[in-house]
Amino acid sequence: MSAPETVNSYLKRRAVEVNEWLDRLVPSESTPPQKIHRAMRYSLLAGGKRLRPALVLASGEALGAETDDLMPAACAIEMIHTYSLIHDDLPAMDDDDLRRGRPTCHKAFGEAVAILAGDALLTQAFRVLAADSPSRNAERQVRMIREIATAAGTVDALIGGQVADIEGEGKAVDASMLEYIHRSKTGAMITASVVVGGIIAGAKEDQIDKLRPYGERIGLAFQIADDILDVTSTSEQLGKTPGKDQAASKATYPAVHGIAASEARARELVAEAVEIVSSINADTQILQEIARFIIARRS
Amino acid sequence: MSAPETVNSYLKRRAVEVNEWLDRLVPSESTPPQKIHRAMRYSLLAGGKRLRPALVLASGEALGAETDDLMPAACAIEMIHTYSLIHDDLPAMDDDDLRRGRPTCHKAFGEAVAILAGDALLTQAFRVLAADSPSRNAERQVRMIREIATAAGTVDALIGGQVADIEGEGKAVDASMLEYIHRSKTGAMITASVVVGGIIAGAKEDQIDKLRPYGERIGLAFQIADDILDVTSTSEQLGKTPGKDQAASKATYPAVHGIAASEARARELVAEAVEIVSSINADTQILQEIARFIIARRS
Repeated sequence: MSAPETVNSYLKRRAVEVNEWLDRLVPSESTPPQKIHRAMRYSLLAGGKRLRPALVLASGEALGAETDDLMPAACAIEMIHTYSLIHDDLPAMDDDDLRRGRPTCHKAFGEAVAILAGDALLTQAFRVLAADSPSRNAERQVRMIREIATAAGTVDALIGGQVADIEGEGKAVDASMLEYIHRSKTGAMITASVVVGGIIAGAKEDQIDKLRPYGERIGLAFQIADDILDVTSTSEQLGKTPGKDQAASKATYPAVHGIAASEARARELVAEAVEIVSSINADTQILQEIARFIIARRS
Repeated sequence: MSAPETVNSYLKRRAVEVNEWLDRLVPSESTPPQKIHRAMRYSLLAGGKRLRPALVLASGEALGAETDDLMPAACAIEMIHTYSLIHDDLPAMDDDDLRRGRPTCHKAFGEAVAILAGDALLTQAFRVLAADSPSRNAERQVRMIREIATAAGTVDALIGGQVADIEGEGKAVDASMLEYIHRSKTGAMITASVVVGGIIAGAKEDQIDKLRPYGERIGLAFQIADDILDVTSTSEQLGKTPGKDQAASKATYPAVHGIAASEARARELVAEAVEIVSSINADTQILQEIARFIIARRS
């Protein structure tokens, strides 16, 4: 990020680069069976902030990795994020019609193809992570795959958080269960994004030991901010149906703690994240700016 | 396989070993969120022939690998196979109520948990493949992950075959499309099982170049035999609803070619597979026996 560049324009610039790579890293629409590739691309290339890829890039570049060596992992993590959105939107889950301002995958392609498109993006993510390239380091590659598969799994991780979220619907969810859901469903993959940047860069263990708590804090802050936006935004701003959490009696930070306390908690987490990442012996300005952006954004 | 041991008892013996490893390689039922782990274990530990794991073991051991080094990959492939069965059985797909003699995952746990249990088994498979161990070789690990993720993907692979199968329902499917579906949906992962055994063993490229066509042939023969069994068996023999393919107007070998020609084709494929694998400079007796068993089995 050059001195006069805002974090907003930084993220937009990286999103353009990421979209170009994503386009290359999934089969074209003309590859048979065409329908599955159309569905994968429909959801994957629908826009979105590309926050997780930006975190892989910002973290990895801060610790000395080349952009081209970071992009496959950045894109793989976005594929996993998109698969989780496609499956979460299914009628058996959150039953959502709108995502990123467009019909959800199952609304556009039918349920069977949407389930398979999610499966396919998850599978393709690991294929991309295990791809051959002249500059790859197999030891780091295996560690990175282990980190991501763990964060996308069931124990304090993506799928576990989604299960707990569904099971909590309509029930009285206490503060500790709410924090578990948020840390697992959103926090784990955001943390993995930051850590994977460090792994690819060959960061020292003491640096990775700081990237991880930075990631955990911005991950939780991101989900708290998301909960607040769901209460305070319009459909146009969000690109998805607002007030949906409340309608589904979902556990949210504002519902459990109120808006003011939720905002205070998010600010506190960001301040901690900035302090932790500042103590790494590297230029982490962008990671600090992204942490602040996470609670300042409007969508 | 010792001299007097039949392939049937060989497979049963290996299935017991594989089941012990599978039990250890997924979180226990008491690990939160308990419901997802109960669902994963319900489907994964429901029995089944464990043909794919046996192929990893037989192939790897023939080329000199240790059983303990093969088991994680053998189990990961079975996890991927089970995830694909859970998702295929969903109401939006084949809408099946019975699998391995018991209610399907979504009948027992609901659709949302079944979708997530499938996702979780796929994710856990890659976690297991990327696990750390003293004897692991990172280069081979990455190659094996690439091989499996490719076989589980959309291009001439597991998901692509399932998409083509669904799209072909009720339509006139010609012989070449039928062969595409079978090669992709069943053949790709069976081939990957055989090849991965070779990769873990550190087999030479010319050996892997023979394992692959052996796997392709037994994979196609296996699916042809499956199609024939669907027409000729009872529910008790199969552990799933027979005649289901016909009822759903699915493309099958007997429907396109007739039973006699289907049986002849399966025998021809097995003979080719035996000839190819016999030309590897190693003791491949078990792989030959498994090839013959594939068309001789009754369930």
